[in-house]
Amino acid sequence: MSKIFVFGHQNPDSDAIGSSLAFAYLAKEAYGLDTEAVALGTPNEETAFVLDYFGVEAPRVVTSAKEEGVDTVILTDHNEFQQSISDIADLTVYGVVDHHRVANFETASPLYMRLEPVGSASSIVYRMFKESNVEVPKALAGLMLSGLISDTLLLKSPTTHETDHQVAKELAAIAGVNLEEYGLAMLKAGTNLASKSAEELIDIDAKTFELNGNQVRVAQVNTVDIAEVLERQAEIEAAIQKAQADNGYSDFVLMITDIINSNSEILALGSNTDKVEAAFDFVLENNHAFLAGAVSRKKQVVPQLTESFNA
Amino acid sequence: MSKIFVFGHQNPDSDAIGSSLAFAYLAKEAYGLDTEAVALGTPNEETAFVLDYFGVEAPRVVTSAKEEGVDTVILTDHNEFQQSISDIADLTVYGVVDHHRVANFETASPLYMRLEPVGSASSIVYRMFKESNVEVPKALAGLMLSGLISDTLLLKSPTTHETDHQVAKELAAIAGVNLEEYGLAMLKAGTNLASKSAEELIDIDAKTFELNGNQVRVAQVNTVDIAEVLERQAEIEAAIQKAQADNGYSDFVLMITDIINSNSEILALGSNTDKVEAAFDFVLENNHAFLAGAVSRKKQVVPQLTESFNA
Repeated sequence: MSKIFVFGHQNPDSDAIGSSLAFAYLAKEAYGLDTEAVALGTPNEETAFVLDYFGVEAPRVVTSAKEEGVDTVILTDHNEFQQSISDIADLTVYGVVDHHRVANFETASPLYMRLEPVGSASSIVYRMFKESNVEVPKALAGLMLSGLISDTLLLKSPTTHETDHQVAKELAAIAGVNLEEYGLAMLKAGTNLASKSAEELIDIDAKTFELNGNQVRVAQVNTVDIAEVLERQAEIEAAIQKAQADNGYSDFVLMITDIINSNSEILALGSNTDKVEAAFDFVLENNHAFLAGAVSRKKQVVPQLTESFNA
Repeated sequence: MSKIFVFGHQNPDSDAIGSSLAFAYLAKEAYGLDTEAVALGTPNEETAFVLDYFGVEAPRVVTSAKEEGVDTVILTDHNEFQQSISDIADLTVYGVVDHHRVANFETASPLYMRLEPVGSASSIVYRMFKESNVEVPKALAGLMLSGLISDTLLLKSPTTHETDHQVAKELAAIAGVNLEEYGLAMLKAGTNLASKSAEELIDIDAKTFELNGNQVRVAQVNTVDIAEVLERQAEIEAAIQKAQADNGYSDFVLMITDIINSNSEILALGSNTDKVEAAFDFVLENNHAFLAGAVSRKKQVVPQLTESFNA
């Protein structure tokens, strides 16, 4: 069996990086596969904090598998092809470990696929360690814990599954950290937006969704102060308009999420802002509006947009 | 939680029926779900033999979930929407247990999905019984064993996974049958084609695939005598042409599979017989050709057709 790349989605976050590193290790130990964890981008500031904390090197960045002589891949934390490696359509997908909806995913042959509607892909990978009776190395426990904390905003997001609390407890014990203290420090490391250009800011955690023929970009930034981000609105809008022109996005929806109070401000530009307004039953003023209680793109934004765009 | 329907694909075979009945039971016992196994068609002769042998009633046939007041479903042994219940696009897919490629499958929300490239969906369901420490009732062991035997032609098909031999051994022990003797009796029960009209014959085990915009119907019948089936070629071709006209199939590919010698004769009619010939590197004479060693639609026919239609 030749080498298999294991990677999370483009614009990798802590769950994409953590789940891919952990699953690459598990697949070697439990299934005897010749895996290498790689990444489709460099770590964001939160993930850089995580890797540094647990003394793990960032996976090397690749843009094409074929160019590296690899034709078989395992996807973690994503399945939609437009969020994956550039040549995904020409590769054999050996397996998928994910916690998202399924869309724009098709294979020629049967494969391993393990999806659960839980808080993070890392939660599933951890469960697979236990099923295989493979001991979890301390650093990988830290990475998987970070993936879960990141995706659920410290178990506060509605995407948190009832089983995730126990997963977090067990991983924190193996990693040797205090869940609350470590979690808040980690999330705050990802909110340092002042050092970012507007172009970087709108790309920290952004995914493209094809909604009824429209390429809709949905980005999210975490902050402890929404107003501070909105002070840069003009600069951010210019970056969004450039991204739309360069990439053909019909719409760009930016979630500015307050991780302390668990709310988001939605900034939306594009051809279908009427559909965005209908999705959330709000009126955009000066292109933005408040969405109380919304912290999850996956559960509180994308399904609503999908329904509205298809209406 | 309201009632959840569990069902296999249209034109159910022994694996579709066996995996859905077994998974509906497991989901009640292990996950506390209010499930009911239903079917998208009546059992074929092989499956009727299986149900009779183990004293299990056939699941009731439904054609729409909404009409029954059900809006949540679990799919076994399939994922492609065109092989599923008529109103699948309007339902919530709670979970999937399958061993096929993924295609034409999309959800609005995250879900449970457990796919493995093994010989039968029943193999996976049995593994999930073990993971959940739920005891397998004797009759359900017999049904899952029958699903595995049916899909792998008694572990001879190239779709057989290395783990399936042990699964078959364990299920045969629980079911209290001799694997070889029971398996052959069961497969032979499915080869009684003389009693079928040509219309029935081409629909015993047939699935539609969308290949590069074409609706391609791929059917399979098992026999112990290929020549006996070909004696009815004129009648079968008339039935195929009627099915094409009625359903808009661009192509119809019938595998006539010799279960004793593990070969198939391919009978193909339609607009793209050049692509069918290219797929298998053979020349159709009088609309049919021999395909040595081919017994698996999933592994030896559909991927080859997919590649050829997309070339």
